[in-house]
Amino acid sequence: MKIGICGVGTVGASLISLIKKNQDEIGRKLEDEIVIHQVALRRENPQCDLTGINITNDIYEVAKNPNIDVLVELIGGTEDAKDLVLLAVKNKKHVVTANKALIAMHGSEIFSAARQMGVCVLFEAAVAGGIPIIKSIREGLVGNIISRIAGILNGTSNFILSEMASKKQPRAFDEVLKEAQKKGYAEADPSFDVNGIDAAHKIVILAMIGFGIKVQFEAVQIEGISEICLEDISLIDEFGFSLKPLAVAFRISDGISLRVYPAMIEKEKVFSKVDGVTNAVLVEGCSVGETLYVGPGAGGDATASSVISDLVHLSRGTNIPNEGFFDLNEAPTIEDSSIDTASYVRLDVKNITGVMASIASVLKKNGIGIESIIQREVSETIARIAIITSIVNEKVLDESLRQLDELLAVISAPTKIRIFKS
Amino acid sequence: MKIGICGVGTVGASLISLIKKNQDEIGRKLEDEIVIHQVALRRENPQCDLTGINITNDIYEVAKNPNIDVLVELIGGTEDAKDLVLLAVKNKKHVVTANKALIAMHGSEIFSAARQMGVCVLFEAAVAGGIPIIKSIREGLVGNIISRIAGILNGTSNFILSEMASKKQPRAFDEVLKEAQKKGYAEADPSFDVNGIDAAHKIVILAMIGFGIKVQFEAVQIEGISEICLEDISLIDEFGFSLKPLAVAFRISDGISLRVYPAMIEKEKVFSKVDGVTNAVLVEGCSVGETLYVGPGAGGDATASSVISDLVHLSRGTNIPNEGFFDLNEAPTIEDSSIDTASYVRLDVKNITGVMASIASVLKKNGIGIESIIQREVSETIARIAIITSIVNEKVLDESLRQLDELLAVISAPTKIRIFKS
Repeated sequence: MKIGICGVGTVGASLISLIKKNQDEIGRKLEDEIVIHQVALRRENPQCDLTGINITNDIYEVAKNPNIDVLVELIGGTEDAKDLVLLAVKNKKHVVTANKALIAMHGSEIFSAARQMGVCVLFEAAVAGGIPIIKSIREGLVGNIISRIAGILNGTSNFILSEMASKKQPRAFDEVLKEAQKKGYAEADPSFDVNGIDAAHKIVILAMIGFGIKVQFEAVQIEGISEICLEDISLIDEFGFSLKPLAVAFRISDGISLRVYPAMIEKEKVFSKVDGVTNAVLVEGCSVGETLYVGPGAGGDATASSVISDLVHLSRGTNIPNEGFFDLNEAPTIEDSSIDTASYVRLDVKNITGVMASIASVLKKNGIGIESIIQREVSETIARIAIITSIVNEKVLDESLRQLDELLAVISAPTKIRIFKS
Repeated sequence: MKIGICGVGTVGASLISLIKKNQDEIGRKLEDEIVIHQVALRRENPQCDLTGINITNDIYEVAKNPNIDVLVELIGGTEDAKDLVLLAVKNKKHVVTANKALIAMHGSEIFSAARQMGVCVLFEAAVAGGIPIIKSIREGLVGNIISRIAGILNGTSNFILSEMASKKQPRAFDEVLKEAQKKGYAEADPSFDVNGIDAAHKIVILAMIGFGIKVQFEAVQIEGISEICLEDISLIDEFGFSLKPLAVAFRISDGISLRVYPAMIEKEKVFSKVDGVTNAVLVEGCSVGETLYVGPGAGGDATASSVISDLVHLSRGTNIPNEGFFDLNEAPTIEDSSIDTASYVRLDVKNITGVMASIASVLKKNGIGIESIIQREVSETIARIAIITSIVNEKVLDESLRQLDELLAVISAPTKIRIFKS
């Protein structure tokens, strides 16, 4: 099988070196060979030995090269990448890509073109780096009706929340972000990571394959982690939870909910222990129940591992596994307001007699139970009250928070963080 | 695709009901149908609706039925199952089995027969129930040279060790075992589970696909968990570890080590948090690094989920994925004595002056460092000393333990528990 690689950054360099290094191992498993026939790059990568490989500066040359069976798209971005992939498909080449934004934004168009041409577009590397989560959902759990997928899909955010919660040395968001940038875990512009866009791209892809729905990036409700403060982290810990940057897709009746938000998970759960830059995906199926997949979500070698998995899949001549997924339903996305959840609510209040009674009264009036409560003195005049609510409709809770905010004793807008139940 | 199912116990009943229930979902993904053409059973299972299905009492009839494409072997045991599977293969049928003992004991013979006939024998359900671990290693991580596989593969043992370590109500081995039997987590004869045989069957299978070696059950060094006592559990916890029933396969130089033993894992590791009957498999690959797979290791529905995954795999007409694995090397298994590991050592000693000095002297003489130590008074005359050793050769450690046992002050044979580093 002859492949052409477009883009030789971190992942491309790892891919080329791994294919060379593991040629024997892959050959043993495959009874075939993966040959790098051409590489397109804008500038040379000194980490990468391209001896003996045909090099071009024109990515589109690879897409048109009649000797190439599979184009590996590693240029990133969405516009050029889309043109490139569509051109390759038009030229009857299979495509393997690590580009989550591309699939999340233009997946439907690309898959439909691929179907017409009878080729396959694979994207294991686009979600959760080296974890074979696409294959697990699409093939390993194929007998299940998937009810929920929840992922820690952004390593930068998970690193930041983990470090903020460090027992040894808790630090505020800004400080940890700077450290993450220094360590290379966060980009110079970290907004896609900490604002949840990156995780949203990924959950849209997982929802597509898990539920058989069209990619619908615009439907994701996105909340980032930049508003999280150390006070909340500490109270969340005291309540027995960890805070994780989650991306969650689930099915209720005929709708699908797609959301990205920081969520609390009970500390006893394995899922809550996934710290640092590590990724994890929890998949719930009707017959298997809960399964969890944990591993490196980024890094050249880990991502290249997933690219190779797709290449081998194609080389084995497997019937196109997305076949059944091209006829994706337009599942409606459901309103946030129709979701029930337990939440953490934090209020800073004047330290005066009767304030707890007024808060409790507002909650009671709205039918919201108090599962657990912590009160701390912030100063002589200010108290901090943190509450774990019963499971309630989010719209009802949000309306109650508005009412609480109007109480004279409440001195800052209430903070709400949802609890993820597994 | 027409299938015949032999054996309608828990898994068989789940499988039949799932195929019926999820017909539409499977059809959507597959653009084909899985039709249950015949079922062979010894006695009727009242949980199972077999209306409209051809029933026989003769399993071999299914293996010879010319209308059947795939035989699903769910009768268990090794002798009849082996005859059945070989007969099906001889009749050019693919086989899907959940039978770990069959694959662990007779895998080489079966795979070689399958290769000759050009059919495929799949066994996702044989290891770790609903976790798609076979597919993940064989396909998802195909680009990796696998260096280590470690699994919590026996739910009964994991349940017992988890309950023994329960903070609320620690209980001794025998008591928890009785509870496990009452809950249906352990068989009336639990020896295969608690003695490590079951886990050994499974690690042999994972090693076969991970390392491309022949199944070699007789090479597994097996230690069960029945000797673990509450004193050790408590000290292990104090040292900051959890105790897990592990099955470990790893590669050093040209050899493979295959072992089953209770092992300590640092509490910060996600792997250490997998409690109860849940299974988990840690896979280390050269490019992906560490990935972890967690889920239900048993149960009808979870196991049936894996059987369906294999059926869909066959139905998609995938090139036989074991192809490359039939030419399995005879990798030599290495001697335990060539393995280096840190360990926990517990000694009950006479509470007399100088005893610690004699112990330390024996260890020092053998080049064994003391990383951490806890001393507890058991009675006025007896002290308990627990030590975490440096990483040392196991043979050296075992010899040191023999020397310690000879000290006059040491009143019972030293206990050794290995630490699993990840």
